[in-house]
Amino acid sequence: MTAHILFSAHASRWDQYEAPLKEALDNAGLDYVLATEMPPDEVDYIVYAPNSDVQDFTPFTRLKAVLNLWAGVEDVVGNATLKAPLARMVDEEGLTQGMVEWVTGHVLRHHLGMDAHIVNPDHKWEPVAPPLAPERPVTILGMGALGRACARALRGLGFPVTGWSRSEKRVANVRCVHGDEGLAQALRGAQIVVLLLPATPETENILNASSLSLLAPGAVVINPGRGPLIDDDALWQALDSGQVGHATLDVFRVEPLPKDHGFWSHPKITISPHIASETRPASASRVIAENIRRGEAGLPFLHLVDRDAGY
Amino acid sequence: MTAHILFSAHASRWDQYEAPLKEALDNAGLDYVLATEMPPDEVDYIVYAPNSDVQDFTPFTRLKAVLNLWAGVEDVVGNATLKAPLARMVDEEGLTQGMVEWVTGHVLRHHLGMDAHIVNPDHKWEPVAPPLAPERPVTILGMGALGRACARALRGLGFPVTGWSRSEKRVANVRCVHGDEGLAQALRGAQIVVLLLPATPETENILNASSLSLLAPGAVVINPGRGPLIDDDALWQALDSGQVGHATLDVFRVEPLPKDHGFWSHPKITISPHIASETRPASASRVIAENIRRGEAGLPFLHLVDRDAGY
Repeated sequence: MTAHILFSAHASRWDQYEAPLKEALDNAGLDYVLATEMPPDEVDYIVYAPNSDVQDFTPFTRLKAVLNLWAGVEDVVGNATLKAPLARMVDEEGLTQGMVEWVTGHVLRHHLGMDAHIVNPDHKWEPVAPPLAPERPVTILGMGALGRACARALRGLGFPVTGWSRSEKRVANVRCVHGDEGLAQALRGAQIVVLLLPATPETENILNASSLSLLAPGAVVINPGRGPLIDDDALWQALDSGQVGHATLDVFRVEPLPKDHGFWSHPKITISPHIASETRPASASRVIAENIRRGEAGLPFLHLVDRDAGY
Repeated sequence: MTAHILFSAHASRWDQYEAPLKEALDNAGLDYVLATEMPPDEVDYIVYAPNSDVQDFTPFTRLKAVLNLWAGVEDVVGNATLKAPLARMVDEEGLTQGMVEWVTGHVLRHHLGMDAHIVNPDHKWEPVAPPLAPERPVTILGMGALGRACARALRGLGFPVTGWSRSEKRVANVRCVHGDEGLAQALRGAQIVVLLLPATPETENILNASSLSLLAPGAVVINPGRGPLIDDDALWQALDSGQVGHATLDVFRVEPLPKDHGFWSHPKITISPHIASETRPASASRVIAENIRRGEAGLPFLHLVDRDAGY
């Protein structure tokens, strides 16, 4: 049987993905048609970016699965017209690796106090060695594929890591806590907090005035997860009071962050333009091809989204 | 037998070391006298900072060993009045851990292009994800205790690492090269170079116009080793030509770096005030106590300096 695969994303993505996706599908031994346009009632699989033209899945009458190109699914998970299984992108080689690098880099940047040397207009020579990683507690909110990988990398460098998740998780050498009670345990006394939660109604504003007050005074907030995880006004106030020492933000409620947004010129906020982690075409294509191979072989899909939980 | 231990370093060091050193010596089960002043002919061991008042070892007639507080020994190794064994500080818990954190942090900073986000006066939103670590070759010059530990940490994050040393070394998953021929192999095409060599006549100016020309265009130089490893004029020219994209320097020929030194205001140089790695009193005290225990038990000392090689 020939698998009919619709690629539905911005045109620039097609330029990046056409070659690696064909290579991955060929290597998976699949018989397929791959195109950016196709009669909806002939489509078996949609390789999908949630910001693409396809928002109504009703005409796709024989759809076997929607294979998301992004790790985040909040813009498609609530789409009531989608009845077929939805798989998120779990791209260990590209997306996860990139996230580990970005998170580890910014944790070390703040841990070492690099900014004082990168921007030092008064040419101050103040040889004060920072504490060592074992003395710097780091908390990660969200222990999915990305959170677990970052926790392992930070443990490897010697940081004591606490990981919080909604449901119970276990990761070697990481203090894992969960649920509402666990959240306070995770945040209390943390010097660096990394947000790697999905955007759901439950996680919206999870960092707010109350939860920020639990952190160690002067703590650093690093958000490569999703913009709505933070109550922006509460963060601003915590930065002004000194309760939060710095925030490095890669994601925002509106992206690109508007030119006139106050975050841009706040001296204690670093804006990173949503680059913490990107799906990489070569490795992501292999993940997609594997899921299509499984679909054609009647095997369960990998990385399926729980539509009720929202991630 | 009572071991007579002279602590010879700046007074501020004594404040840091008195308590942890006594604790470590007690834990080693030693019978000892520890003081900052003592008749030279009664001294068995000197816990030593090369910038201390003791520069003539002749009066120390029964000296069993000099135990350096620093990793670098270039300011004492050539002292002809010193006949007793000289041990360098190898402080895995403190100094090595600190160096791994500093090197990993600055490698990731440059790899990720963080500076463009930390200093972004025009509020540019340019979402270009950096390459992944496996695409970023890093070379470490110097594969002693510090170089090997940094190589392992960078490999753990996915960087391809080449390590160069004078004599042959082997480190798992690190491409090890050595000798004059190996140096060119190590530098050719490297995108990030980390200097962790000792300061010796052989290593002086090891990064010069010729060796810098082997690097990948726009490469980054990171020097937490010793100032004289770099020909400063050649580095300046390579920065101006673009052959070197940035230099992050933690050590200098004169420290503190003089206020009027041109490096301070060079836009492509980051000055770090010799904090990449510091001996930490608690862990360093354990290393010193262990060496004194070995000396008293007639066992060979650890971390002895080869006075001929100079390190």
